[in-house]
Amino acid sequence: MKLATLRTADGTRAVRLDGETLVDLGYADLGELFAQDDWRNQAAGASGTTYPVDGADFAPVVPRPSKVVCVGHNYTNHIKEMGRDLPTHPTLFPKFAETLLGANDDIVKPDETDALDWEVELAVVVGKRVRRADEQQAADAVAGFTVMNDISLRDWQFRTIEWTQGKIWEATTPVGPYVVTPDEVGGVRPALQVTTTVDGEVMQQDDTGTLLFDPVFLIQYISTVITLNPGDIIATGTPAGVGNARDPKVFLLPGQTVVTEITGLGACVNKVVAG
Amino acid sequence: MKLATLRTADGTRAVRLDGETLVDLGYADLGELFAQDDWRNQAAGASGTTYPVDGADFAPVVPRPSKVVCVGHNYTNHIKEMGRDLPTHPTLFPKFAETLLGANDDIVKPDETDALDWEVELAVVVGKRVRRADEQQAADAVAGFTVMNDISLRDWQFRTIEWTQGKIWEATTPVGPYVVTPDEVGGVRPALQVTTTVDGEVMQQDDTGTLLFDPVFLIQYISTVITLNPGDIIATGTPAGVGNARDPKVFLLPGQTVVTEITGLGACVNKVVAG
Repeated sequence: MKLATLRTADGTRAVRLDGETLVDLGYADLGELFAQDDWRNQAAGASGTTYPVDGADFAPVVPRPSKVVCVGHNYTNHIKEMGRDLPTHPTLFPKFAETLLGANDDIVKPDETDALDWEVELAVVVGKRVRRADEQQAADAVAGFTVMNDISLRDWQFRTIEWTQGKIWEATTPVGPYVVTPDEVGGVRPALQVTTTVDGEVMQQDDTGTLLFDPVFLIQYISTVITLNPGDIIATGTPAGVGNARDPKVFLLPGQTVVTEITGLGACVNKVVAG
Repeated sequence: MKLATLRTADGTRAVRLDGETLVDLGYADLGELFAQDDWRNQAAGASGTTYPVDGADFAPVVPRPSKVVCVGHNYTNHIKEMGRDLPTHPTLFPKFAETLLGANDDIVKPDETDALDWEVELAVVVGKRVRRADEQQAADAVAGFTVMNDISLRDWQFRTIEWTQGKIWEATTPVGPYVVTPDEVGGVRPALQVTTTVDGEVMQQDDTGTLLFDPVFLIQYISTVITLNPGDIIATGTPAGVGNARDPKVFLLPGQTVVTEITGLGACVNKVVAG
């Protein structure tokens, strides 16, 4: 299944993609859907109002997750381009609900930055409440996968030793368009091609099969620390090719379009506009 | 006013301290109260059900804040004990709602750590939605102050270069007992004595008047990055004397009681118990 949260004139709606239509699932968003124990059956069986895919206005797949946990240093190539050793543990940092954007929303470049950078990421959406999950429980807790562009303000990220303030900017981080269930992409550790283009130029390209810490391990690891709730989002890190690691550095400018795409999941297509 | 969120047999209640009684304010918790534009008048005027202070079971002052933003490196003495230069910008890191405890709850030491450490902090609770607040707007957005013990798992905090995974552990961080409005503590930049004791031994002692980045500045700074909502919590950093900076290092053990206290605000008194 491909599931999404659609903006309509009457507020957001959780929907399922059926060919060229989106079928209403009876909940305001995917966060509400995933909070139902039997959400898979409900999502598969629903046959409500439909909306055309054409012109659909996607909200963040989960508009108000209780937490967004992001992973740094998870693709071998990106770790090397940043000049770091391979880590023994995942590096974690946060985003907040207000940080998220829909898959096709404009990214408003804050006036306060001159270093707006892209990071395509496979994001895992949690479908079940788990704490200290074992491997099977972690696998069962994967609702599906989506695309995140982990937009980063490098000048703020590196002001201090903690990245948080460069990662949580309001309305900067597209996530969507769909949450695609594992059965459609080869399971809970999918090997999918991830790509970023800026105005058509390929900036990042790698394969999620090369992740050091895979989605199931990440759910085990993070849920050791804190409860993961339905709708929580884990961003699994970005591959080589970010603008900050280029020589000379390249950052996003108003007027450009950044596309972050993952085979089988779709793409976030976002125009950068002036603040 | 001294406001709190009280656990009762019928769920939590927002309350005001009147002498030896707690007066029900008509909301389930302080997060709901602070979401009301005229919360100050409502809180001052309420005269509902009362509960005795004696034996009160305090929830985290705001049980489900939309975000908790913590500041590192904010007391000159603590920065020096960690061997760092004085920073030009605040260092930010997160906690999540599930991380919080009530003021007198037991701290269950996770089996996964041998380095459970204390950090007394003045915490600011936000009383108004703000983005890119100027100085006056930031001052007006202070609902009040409370005590946080920013419990840190040092072995997890320093596994990677990002502290997050040592800071967000489930049910580790007491915050309370009261949110005390600025008029009771000398305004929005109060100079209050902060103290940590472990089994009666003084471990930390400093004055919030020596903060490098004061509460008003922090609201301005953080709200530049992201919207602060009513009920959000900003922890302003800890002074010298943490267990990890001692020689030899000292960490919390089951059976010990850690007290974090701020003059005028009260104390979190927490027993450490085995996991």
